[in-house]
Amino acid sequence: MARKSLQHLECAVANTVEMVNDAWTVLILRDAFLGVRRFDQFVDDLGIARNVLTDRLERLVADGMMETRLYQERPPRHEYRLTEQGKDLFDLLMTLWSYGERWKPPTGRRQKVIHSTCGEEARAVAHCGNCGVRLSRRDVVIEPPLEVVGEREKTALVEA
Amino acid sequence: MARKSLQHLECAVANTVEMVNDAWTVLILRDAFLGVRRFDQFVDDLGIARNVLTDRLERLVADGMMETRLYQERPPRHEYRLTEQGKDLFDLLMTLWSYGERWKPPTGRRQKVIHSTCGEEARAVAHCGNCGVRLSRRDVVIEPPLEVVGEREKTALVEA
Repeated sequence: MARKSLQHLECAVANTVEMVNDAWTVLILRDAFLGVRRFDQFVDDLGIARNVLTDRLERLVADGMMETRLYQERPPRHEYRLTEQGKDLFDLLMTLWSYGERWKPPTGRRQKVIHSTCGEEARAVAHCGNCGVRLSRRDVVIEPPLEVVGEREKTALVEA
Repeated sequence: MARKSLQHLECAVANTVEMVNDAWTVLILRDAFLGVRRFDQFVDDLGIARNVLTDRLERLVADGMMETRLYQERPPRHEYRLTEQGKDLFDLLMTLWSYGERWKPPTGRRQKVIHSTCGEEARAVAHCGNCGVRLSRRDVVIEPPLEVVGEREKTALVEA
């Protein structure tokens, strides 16, 4: 069998991972959610090299996650703001954070994400955006199913 | 300012991204959730090169996401199963999928993830694992706050 390229296997999961598969990009997004907007603020907060930051910000703008806005005319200075598409990453960042806190917690200083509504640490869990019920592997199926291979007979997202 | 390495900036988000930052890895995990367990099944389903698959499976086992189990003694054959840590990726995969479906949908054949509980497409949204309320950027704060830089005065995950 010829090796398929990932293009042929593209699925929404892979497409999303491609957008957030760079650690600097994720840290830039995290800072953006925390209110950082200006180039020098990102540099100061992350200690990122300026050429790397320029590259990542350009990609975030090209991907539609951020947009530039002029905040000073002479000399012209732009700040970087999350677009709607960028803001919509909130659920994903919270889920990435929650998984990491559970299974790969940082060894250095600990920062907590607090849900001010209940006062506890905000650990994201996935609910159905339609009916609101907690999503479970056993209640989710793929349609149409992937081609059934070998002994695999089910398409439910279940792994016993 | 000296450029800090990502080690110094490690946070749970970056740690998680490091685990899922490879498109093949994500596709292998997706297949595992769909019930694929055997090496040749992954090869057939993904069209992945055997050496690449070997490498990714070894990493998934080393990272604690999958474990091997002997299913045949002569000759010895192992299958790959999700561990608890691997199964716990469900929320993250659903969130990655949902974001991609919304903002970067695949252009090829469309597969839907159906929530059998309500019969609609399962689009994951993040709720608080403690109180169950839908998480919002405006209800989440980081403690202790990142150092305040420049004009940034708030630590709420709000970007106006």
